[in-house]
This record gives sequence, C-alpha cells and structure tokens, in this order.
Amino acid sequence: MRLPGIGPKGAQRLAFHLLKTPRELTDRLIDALRDVKERVTYCSVCNNITDTDPCAFCSSESRDPQIICVVEEPQNVSAIEKTREFKGMYHVLMGALSPLQGIGPDDLKIKGLLGRIGTTVSEVILATNPNVEGEATAIYLARLLKPLGVKVTRIAMGVPVGSDLEYADEVTMHKSMEGRREV
Amino acid sequence: MRLPGIGPKGAQRLAFHLLKTPRELTDRLIDALRDVKERVTYCSVCNNITDTDPCAFCSSESRDPQIICVVEEPQNVSAIEKTREFKGMYHVLMGALSPLQGIGPDDLKIKGLLGRIGTTVSEVILATNPNVEGEATAIYLARLLKPLGVKVTRIAMGVPVGSDLEYADEVTMHKSMEGRREV
Repeated sequence: MRLPGIGPKGAQRLAFHLLKTPRELTDRLIDALRDVKERVTYCSVCNNITDTDPCAFCSSESRDPQIICVVEEPQNVSAIEKTREFKGMYHVLMGALSPLQGIGPDDLKIKGLLGRIGTTVSEVILATNPNVEGEATAIYLARLLKPLGVKVTRIAMGVPVGSDLEYADEVTMHKSMEGRREV
Repeated sequence: MRLPGIGPKGAQRLAFHLLKTPRELTDRLIDALRDVKERVTYCSVCNNITDTDPCAFCSSESRDPQIICVVEEPQNVSAIEKTREFKGMYHVLMGALSPLQGIGPDDLKIKGLLGRIGTTVSEVILATNPNVEGEATAIYLARLLKPLGVKVTRIAMGVPVGSDLEYADEVTMHKSMEGRREV
C-alpha cells in the first residue's frame, strides 16, 4: 500500500497473488528489485537514469551533440523519445524551480548544464513542463544560457493534436493564437 | 430526451419541474425559444450567429479588419474571444472537410471567405480544430488563400498550458518540439 496507485484491495490482491506464485518467479522479482537499486544510477553527464555511465544517449555516436533538450524528470525523456523525431542530447534538471516547495536553483542540476555549453552546442531546447514551475525554470535558464551565445528555444504550447477548440482553456487558446505559424 | 445531454431521467425531472413552475416563468421560456428561432440568424459576412446583420464583430469600428480568423463553428468564436487578445475579424466555415461524412468544399462557407480577401486583409489565421478534419480543412484553405497574396497562419499545436509532459500524447509532443520558438 506504500507504493503509488495501490490501495488496500490492490495490495491484498498482490499479496495473495505472490503467495500462489511459484518460487522462481518471486525470486526473479526479488532480483529485479535488487538490480534497480544496485545497477540503476544517474548519468554523470545528463542525470538521466541509466545502468551505464555515461548513459546510452550521452555515449551514442548517432545522436546530434549540437542540440541539448532540457527536461525536469527522467520520465520526460521517455515522453520525448516516443515521438521518434528528436535525435539530440538530453539534460535532466531533477525538478523545477518552486519557491513554495523551497526548491531553488542550487537544488537543480543547472551547473552541469552550463558546463556542457561549449563550442559544439548550438541550441538548447527548454522542454520543462508547461506549468508555472516549468515556465519559471525555463525563463531562469534562458537568462543564464543566452549570454553564453547559444540559441535557446521553448517547446510550443497550444491546443493538443486531436482535440477540439471547444475544450481548450483560455490560457492555452491564447498561447495557441500567439504562437501561430505561417503555413 | 431529443435534446443533447438529456437522458430519460433528466427529461422526467425537467418535465416535472416545468409542471411545478409558475405560468409566467414557462411563458418566458416559450418566448425565449421563439426568439431564438425568429431573431437569431447568421451574419451575411462571417456566418457567425447574430441578432443583427452584419454581426457585432463585422460592424465593429474598433476591430482590426486586416486579420481574419477562420473557425469551424460559431462556438469556436466564443473560445477565442475568451482569450481577450484577438481583436481581428472572424469567418465561420460551418463545418470542416470530412469525406467520410460526405462534407466537401461546397458544403462549407469558403466562397464567402475568398470574397472577403481584398486589399485590406493582410493575414488569415486558420483556427480550425486540431484534429484530422480541421487539419485537412486548414491545408485546403491555405492552398486557396496563398495565391491571393495573403499571409496564412495556423494556430499553434502543442502541450496545453498547466499540464505535464508526462500526459502529452506522442503526436502533440512531436508538434510541440517541432513548433518550438526562440526565447
């Protein structure tokens, strides 16, 4: 029940299921759990979760080192990878600026990002979340990065693909009108 | 029950409520229903619903006649008006291209739109819905409008404001990366 999304009934169902499961299957689950804590670490370059250091993205020969996409959490890397379009590098901040929760610039992996901006990097895409904290983090990072002479871009906010204008909230509709592009 | 969103129970509840309501209130409802059909018509310029012709938008002195925002339905005008940012004109197509439903270009108010593109109009914003039909309609209109020498733009598709990248679908995430803008 301490795991996310598992309530009393789900916990009981899992417990009884494990009791009925053959020993070798529970042993494999035990090994997997141990592996997670022992083998999965954070990449020393981009802070993404990885079992090798540097991670598969940072050590890849086929990815474009000129573009760094900055995200808040490792799961955001998966969200962007699913598009199968982005072939650059990543940088995981491990959170977003949030004065209410006491998260300041020093709590995020910002120094590491600045250290990566050399002559090879031509563009930094700020793909922090499109909410208050993510937007504040993007503005903060843009101010730090632009003096370094790198192009800084922000992912587009707008109406989600497949939806209807009727369901768009005012702020999203405004951003969608503001961010219109020539066709 | 023939009205949208009203099932058997809701219909019964409404019927009994009307039986209990004083006569003057039901008379006002009757008048309102009659007014809707008698007074509300479509604007001869933009096809938006209106009780004057031309409508309040088309006859306004304070709105910018250089920009026309093209939408599918009258309710989409309300969605954009809620942003309180757009001060141009509208054009309602009364639908979107949909071969499956047998809706072709001749079923939409496209001729009227082309007729409005004179020397005063400098930009047409295609704000059709961000789904298959709306996108097809936007592409069709862009092909017709661009030879007329007018700037044609499409509203931005991307991650909705206030959301989290984790919940963005692949196509929206792709559009958001593709449509990134320099900050």
